[in-house]
Amino acid sequence: KLKEILEEMHFVDVSDTLLSLKNEKDQSYLLSLLDNELAADVLNELETELVVELLENLPHNRISGILEKMPFDDVADFLGELPEEEQDKFLKLLRAHDAADVQELMDYDEDSAGGLMTTEYVAIPENITAAKAIEVLRDIAPDAETVYYVYVINLKNQLVGVISLRELIVTSPDSLILEIMRKKFISVNVCEDQEVVANLVSKYDILAIPVVDDLNHLVGIITVDDVIDVIHEEATEDIYRLAGTYSGEEEVTAKYLTAIKSRLPWLLVTMLGGLFSGHVLGKFSDQLSAVVALAFFIPLLTGMGGNVGTQSSTVTVRGIATGQINPNTVIKTILRESMVGVSLGLVLGSMVALVAYVWQGSIALGVVVGLAMLGNMFTAATMGTLVPIIFKKVGVDPAVASAPFITTSIDIVGLIIYSTLATLLLNYML
Amino acid sequence: KLKEILEEMHFVDVSDTLLSLKNEKDQSYLLSLLDNELAADVLNELETELVVELLENLPHNRISGILEKMPFDDVADFLGELPEEEQDKFLKLLRAHDAADVQELMDYDEDSAGGLMTTEYVAIPENITAAKAIEVLRDIAPDAETVYYVYVINLKNQLVGVISLRELIVTSPDSLILEIMRKKFISVNVCEDQEVVANLVSKYDILAIPVVDDLNHLVGIITVDDVIDVIHEEATEDIYRLAGTYSGEEEVTAKYLTAIKSRLPWLLVTMLGGLFSGHVLGKFSDQLSAVVALAFFIPLLTGMGGNVGTQSSTVTVRGIATGQINPNTVIKTILRESMVGVSLGLVLGSMVALVAYVWQGSIALGVVVGLAMLGNMFTAATMGTLVPIIFKKVGVDPAVASAPFITTSIDIVGLIIYSTLATLLLNYML
Ligand SMILES: [Mg+2]
Ligand SMILES: [Mg+2]
Ligand SMILES: [Mg+2]
Ligand SMILES: [Mg+2]
Ligand SMILES: [Mg+2]
Ligand SMILES: [Mg+2]
Ligand SMILES: [Mg+2]
Ligand SMILES: [Mg+2]
Ligand SMILES: [Mg+2]
Ligand SMILES: [Mg+2]
Ligand SMILES: [Mg+2]
Ligand SMILES: [Mg+2]
Ligand SMILES: [Mg+2]
Repeated sequence: KLKEILEEMHFVDVSDTLLSLKNEKDQSYLLSLLDNELAADVLNELETELVVELLENLPHNRISGILEKMPFDDVADFLGELPEEEQDKFLKLLRAHDAADVQELMDYDEDSAGGLMTTEYVAIPENITAAKAIEVLRDIAPDAETVYYVYVINLKNQLVGVISLRELIVTSPDSLILEIMRKKFISVNVCEDQEVVANLVSKYDILAIPVVDDLNHLVGIITVDDVIDVIHEEATEDIYRLAGTYSGEEEVTAKYLTAIKSRLPWLLVTMLGGLFSGHVLGKFSDQLSAVVALAFFIPLLTGMGGNVGTQSSTVTVRGIATGQINPNTVIKTILRESMVGVSLGLVLGSMVALVAYVWQGSIALGVVVGLAMLGNMFTAATMGTLVPIIFKKVGVDPAVASAPFITTSIDIVGLIIYSTLATLLLNYML
Repeated sequence: KLKEILEEMHFVDVSDTLLSLKNEKDQSYLLSLLDNELAADVLNELETELVVELLENLPHNRISGILEKMPFDDVADFLGELPEEEQDKFLKLLRAHDAADVQELMDYDEDSAGGLMTTEYVAIPENITAAKAIEVLRDIAPDAETVYYVYVINLKNQLVGVISLRELIVTSPDSLILEIMRKKFISVNVCEDQEVVANLVSKYDILAIPVVDDLNHLVGIITVDDVIDVIHEEATEDIYRLAGTYSGEEEVTAKYLTAIKSRLPWLLVTMLGGLFSGHVLGKFSDQLSAVVALAFFIPLLTGMGGNVGTQSSTVTVRGIATGQINPNTVIKTILRESMVGVSLGLVLGSMVALVAYVWQGSIALGVVVGLAMLGNMFTAATMGTLVPIIFKKVGVDPAVASAPFITTSIDIVGLIIYSTLATLLLNYML
């Protein structure tokens, strides 16, 4: 009865149901009701740790059966997260040929095209007919990740063309593949970064992208569902990095200690920066003692500088990630951001100068605060833009130019500007 | 010659080529070389303004031909950005039936399922055979957005099943659709938010999702390529909002004035907050005059509080967007973040207390700075987590709990804690 209900459900929902069972015994029982194919789909949705636990309760022939039904890319990702002895234990349960395929996939960097691809694609020779191609496809279909693109290879296994199932079914059955295939197609090198892969799939609106080695041999395909995961992962990575926290896994599900560890480094940087800011103010203590009102504007100046800097650095980091900031637009972007900083500084600096004058009754104080604001916002916008661009240039992730990094640097520069101006104009403020 | 080269290129690259031509005359000439189908694909990649300019140079029958080749969802998006007279002008150039379809699509909110969907899907009745279904599909293929899912409807046009082309081609040709279709499938209401649509497609790894109205009538489909655009758009939106800047369009390509306008609001909030912080310090000027070293630690305290708050709010905003923070996990998340704040505050507060004592030789100052740091980081982490959650609850975009908003509020609260502690312990610091 329960078995029938489960078989009618979508596997994603079955795995949600499994997760809602709190104890492992119930979870194992639920899993035991599923056939190998459904079990494979369900386990594929779960975290590695839990999968290992659940698999260990099963007899060997059942584990083999389930693993054989999983796409190779997912088996490789799963095994990649296990210690080596465990990997071997599971690899032995696969057919020798499949184990070799999986092991090859495990050799690629997980952030590269090779780490994303699967070897279960449909490939055909160029000299068959459309009807024959559909027949081949029907045979391979149960094992293929997608049947909607068919890849055409020559005798050396080099990729020479692509044809979609859509094209295959509307074409006349006896047309030759060679004549109807697309000879210009998008492909990607096996070492390419996953972000580049994602941008190509997104730009060309394709459902899968073929992966080739340096000699143009077809080695795998990457399907759009995995590309969507990459897009999510890269966006999360950038968002976290920009806030100065990174744990490699999504933080909300991360444990308390992981959260501490991923946030502490930037906080230590901020702390050193804050102490250095204090040191700058220490050099300036005569002026602060003489005109205590100078202290009142410190939070305003550092707050505004930090925000302008964060805005500029965020726009720049996102622009680099989406490819909108590139060698053609980089100069324009820097100029525009600096101009934005100066304009905002002129407008807000004048307002703040006026407030300072009215509040404290000192024109000189107003001038110092207003000019400091202008200088602050100009450097904030310029640094916020330049730092990620320079990081990119020297091969550092631009998102390292995070809010903590930018706000801390700008605090220091801004306070130096402020204290210098205050020293110059001190006599007029007394 | 040029024409042949263009026809061999992918349309995305043709539109890149068109964009690289600087003057409109050359662009129009390039466009004139393309047939309607390629022209439609190429124009689809360009910005609305440029498309209008280019179309206006063409004779009416050519405009009709091109628009008829564009997917309806894209025509609707394009027309949606034009003033009403212009819309009518173009709608008149479509076949009456198509114009009606397009106009219907234009009525939906652009951030809803209706705003994303197209009406060019393949639908079949339930009582035909697989062979007949493939035949229908072959006929509709040229106009359909995707042929890889076929939607099964009853006589009332209600969606009753889904079958993939993959299933159709492997099944025996005379099996009845009714018997082989999936009766449990994912669909989405036409009014659903685009972010929910994207999360469903991503969760279930599907290539298209059917859109139904309240009575379960099939009204359209949303394809995965448009879902990818939504995921990019929503990630960019959140990233920009978190930094306190938003322009509705991606900022890097935005004009200088748009950038100013999208950043100014949060900067004004920050300025008011900064002035209020100054006001708090003003109340506290006797203590600041007496112990000028108190001022040295202001940038450190506001900087650290701001960063901890930004880290917590970012993790929370992203968690809400990805669905990892939900009613089941919300309490755990709040507790964890507060704990993280307290732990970081204890560690970093002790360090800073020690530095303050060694540097200024006052135990009381060390205690004030250390305790302020602890209080600051606890409130920062807690506010950073609670504010987005409360915003979500009351229907405001959680990402409005941006860095500027959080850092400014935390500056104020932190300075109140600091000045209160300093006032209490003033006698020991003198
Ligand atoms: Mg992998
Ligand atoms: Mg796209
Ligand atoms: Mg597109
Ligand atoms: Mg996969
Ligand atoms: Mg990245
Ligand atoms: Mg990356
Ligand atoms: Mg639309
Ligand atoms: Mg998915
Ligand atoms: Mg998946
Ligand atoms: Mg579309
Ligand atoms: Mg959103
Ligand atoms: Mg939105
Ligand atoms: Mg700050």
